[in-house]
Amino acid sequence: MKKTLSLILAAVAMAAALPAAAQFAKPEDALKYRKASLSVIGTHFGRVGAMVNGRVPFDAKVAADNIEVVSELAKYPWTAFGEGTDKGETRAKPEIWTENAKFKEAAEKFQAETVKLKAASKTGNLDMIKTAFGATGASCKACHDNFRKD
Amino acid sequence: MKKTLSLILAAVAMAAALPAAAQFAKPEDALKYRKASLSVIGTHFGRVGAMVNGRVPFDAKVAADNIEVVSELAKYPWTAFGEGTDKGETRAKPEIWTENAKFKEAAEKFQAETVKLKAASKTGNLDMIKTAFGATGASCKACHDNFRKD
Repeated sequence: MKKTLSLILAAVAMAAALPAAAQFAKPEDALKYRKASLSVIGTHFGRVGAMVNGRVPFDAKVAADNIEVVSELAKYPWTAFGEGTDKGETRAKPEIWTENAKFKEAAEKFQAETVKLKAASKTGNLDMIKTAFGATGASCKACHDNFRKD
Repeated sequence: MKKTLSLILAAVAMAAALPAAAQFAKPEDALKYRKASLSVIGTHFGRVGAMVNGRVPFDAKVAADNIEVVSELAKYPWTAFGEGTDKGETRAKPEIWTENAKFKEAAEKFQAETVKLKAASKTGNLDMIKTAFGATGASCKACHDNFRKD
């Protein structure tokens, strides 16, 4: 009985996991998507950075718009690191799969920071945006250091 | 006096246009960004399409989330088609620059359709989403047919 139940639970868990895994027809599609989405995140985050670092004048509306893209997209790249997507043209380190819990934690940390960054952007206060931008950038860097090849 | 004024107005217009043009340090960056952002739009639009076409079960929340990404990103790829970005590894047709007003109109049409698609997604009604999805898809296709090489 216990065994049957655990088999059923395993089947349910697999079925629940399927949609995410099945979002990409081929591993190449997953690689393409995660590169594209992370690149778009990087561009918009960089635009906020230019204001935070004083390279371009601060514009609260522009900052908020760019942060909106970052926080909206922050949820998505991680589903594209499924099983079988560790090969091909990728800078993904094997640790993403061998230490998957840590990778997921790092991805969640980044998402949590983007939520705070979005909240900061709503205030229109540059100092608050700076602080949240720094914390978000640190979460990008931590994940890149541990899980992305140079 | 009139001449001075028009010179000033021209200078102001140029300065106002600068930020968009200066968003990319190099033409390659613009190419990379527009490919990445349009690819991400395509992936999320495709996920809505899978539901609209009945390939995966309709989930109003998932549809709305994917449409949110599409409508949010829909504003951005067009700034990456500036002067000097017609060369290199691109399927962009010369018409983008020789018939720029038409290209902009096509881009605006797409954006307008995504606004309607987002409104439809808020209703959670599959039929309304289907209609708006069709119109949005048609605006993608029209622009690809006219401005993208096969």
